[in-house]
Amino acid sequence: MTRQIYMDYNATAPMRPRAIEAVAAGLAQAGNPSSVHRFGRLARRAVEAARETLAGAVGARPAEILFVSGGSEANNLALKGAGRARVLASAVEHDSVLAAAAVERIPVDREGIVDLTALERMLNMDSRPALVSVMLANNETGAIQPVAEVARIAHARGALVHCDAVQAFGRIVLDLPALDVDFASLSAHKLGGPTGIGALYMRDGLALTAQIAGGGQERGQRAGTPNLPGIVGFGVVAQQANADIEDMRRIRELRDRLESGVRRLQPSVRIFAENAERLPNTSCFAVAGLDSETQVIALDLAGIAVSAGAACSSGRVQASHVLRAMGADPVLAGSAIRVSLGWQSEERDIDEFLTAWRALLARHAGAAQTETAA
Amino acid sequence: MTRQIYMDYNATAPMRPRAIEAVAAGLAQAGNPSSVHRFGRLARRAVEAARETLAGAVGARPAEILFVSGGSEANNLALKGAGRARVLASAVEHDSVLAAAAVERIPVDREGIVDLTALERMLNMDSRPALVSVMLANNETGAIQPVAEVARIAHARGALVHCDAVQAFGRIVLDLPALDVDFASLSAHKLGGPTGIGALYMRDGLALTAQIAGGGQERGQRAGTPNLPGIVGFGVVAQQANADIEDMRRIRELRDRLESGVRRLQPSVRIFAENAERLPNTSCFAVAGLDSETQVIALDLAGIAVSAGAACSSGRVQASHVLRAMGADPVLAGSAIRVSLGWQSEERDIDEFLTAWRALLARHAGAAQTETAA
Repeated sequence: MTRQIYMDYNATAPMRPRAIEAVAAGLAQAGNPSSVHRFGRLARRAVEAARETLAGAVGARPAEILFVSGGSEANNLALKGAGRARVLASAVEHDSVLAAAAVERIPVDREGIVDLTALERMLNMDSRPALVSVMLANNETGAIQPVAEVARIAHARGALVHCDAVQAFGRIVLDLPALDVDFASLSAHKLGGPTGIGALYMRDGLALTAQIAGGGQERGQRAGTPNLPGIVGFGVVAQQANADIEDMRRIRELRDRLESGVRRLQPSVRIFAENAERLPNTSCFAVAGLDSETQVIALDLAGIAVSAGAACSSGRVQASHVLRAMGADPVLAGSAIRVSLGWQSEERDIDEFLTAWRALLARHAGAAQTETAA
Repeated sequence: MTRQIYMDYNATAPMRPRAIEAVAAGLAQAGNPSSVHRFGRLARRAVEAARETLAGAVGARPAEILFVSGGSEANNLALKGAGRARVLASAVEHDSVLAAAAVERIPVDREGIVDLTALERMLNMDSRPALVSVMLANNETGAIQPVAEVARIAHARGALVHCDAVQAFGRIVLDLPALDVDFASLSAHKLGGPTGIGALYMRDGLALTAQIAGGGQERGQRAGTPNLPGIVGFGVVAQQANADIEDMRRIRELRDRLESGVRRLQPSVRIFAENAERLPNTSCFAVAGLDSETQVIALDLAGIAVSAGAACSSGRVQASHVLRAMGADPVLAGSAIRVSLGWQSEERDIDEFLTAWRALLARHAGAAQTETAA
């Protein structure tokens, strides 16, 4: 069998061995953290230790961290639970932000960066209480948003600010007090933790309407028996998050090597958000007419896993709303692939990707020539 | 250290070794089931295999099973997502049903069984589209509700029916077509699966409004990267659910031994729902004035974990709304403890419980005598 190369960390990351061990230990620990007895107390202690670790990793206080089932739930909880009359979100947000409410979309520029002047105008023209949601880093392009600026503008106009930090956490420094946001969504599985666990940061003093109502768990903001093994696993990767960022220097070199290789093979390639500050692990690029799905499938046959954009729509490959919002025409948007790297990535992965991609380009050029000749 | 005896399976059950193994294997499997590539396909295959197993265990079709983060989410999703103008629920439902909507409470009798005549009357007096939610088995008393009868009455009046089957699954036969309900909530951790994973059965042809919106996952009814290890673990315990029920004969004998012992020690004990059909693993009883919390703490010191009712309110012990709805006065309701057994329970657990409880009773009687003498 061909060596399998995973280059789709923004969809989900292979789990860190230490997180696997921690989750496995958590599985063997019986006890509902809500129970009064010894089993319950030990479970509660494990949950609270993880909460402290996670809070510490993002500059929050433990009481500001609410555990939920993942990033999508965190985004929905913030947008619906804040109960604001208006919700403004950048046009490049994740679907779980854009679909969570009747969102007014803030436009972005060609690099995918939110238009702060437009945000200011939108807030000025309607004085109803608003929530502004802008992600820290885009899942498709890796573009990093000026979230602290967004918060300054929004707060000056009485708006609350939510930040989807799911893709940023563990890849760039995540200092929530410096960003000055009111809510932030986090997820474990993008940084090598388990799926099924995420968190919502909620600034001290704020409250929301629980979207899963019924128990007193998570300070009344989210009912349900806590996912103890998941929470423990999240704690382990949160602890490691800053070390992960150290490794991003290496990852960035790999990503840059990939992009120069791609450009050398096809100078007309468009690398999205290339001139913006970006996550070090993400590259999204397109050669007009070289269909996304064709590439994903051909690369998959060569043992290389990449994505045609957001992986969130159960197997359907759709033209990305992110790239469209950045002004890419439908053909270009339909030709984009996303390569996202992580802790297991190594130099030979890049070289094998380039070899496979070169073959793919050659077949495409051959096909185009045949078409022209016909 | 004292041997620790766990008798709180209705709060959460110790995990089955086979489920631990399956979850651990799932943790090592990278890949988002929504991804097109090989990793994604393998992940999708694992999720769909578990869906088939779970569906088979409850008489459903795979497409009728939606994976969610647990029982509380399933209850909230059904009650909110069905979008019915009225929601009627029995007064003894779990908090995650009672708090999910503006519920009209259907009264119950002294045994905690829903009053079908009252349900009929409530449905007849208001013709707006309704959802009726009645649990299969109560978490505190184990009382089993006449859900098929509820469905017959509700359907005849155009209402939809939701059944919280979280506590029943793996303890009594769960045949959803025979119950003829439209929605049913399931959870893995009550039967020895992992926490953080549950499911909502939704009858073919129905739809709901997603409460976690944003991705196409779970047929558009629930966004978020699926919790693959959790789902795989749920599949394993679902597969085992019918074998678990075989073991319930043994568990029932243990429970009955416990209750005769308790009655022998204190003939005035009230065993809740004693004359109703009950889960074989659950016993909820009270001696008026022998405070719940005192008992839970004293038993905990003796190494025995029981509950003072629902464990869902993060350490707070409250007078149970279930026992109050059954007509128990506040003192009696505040004196109840719940013992719930499961796969690791054995005869010596019962004997040790009775020894500890006798000591507790003696101390209580001594204290009462001292008070009388003073």
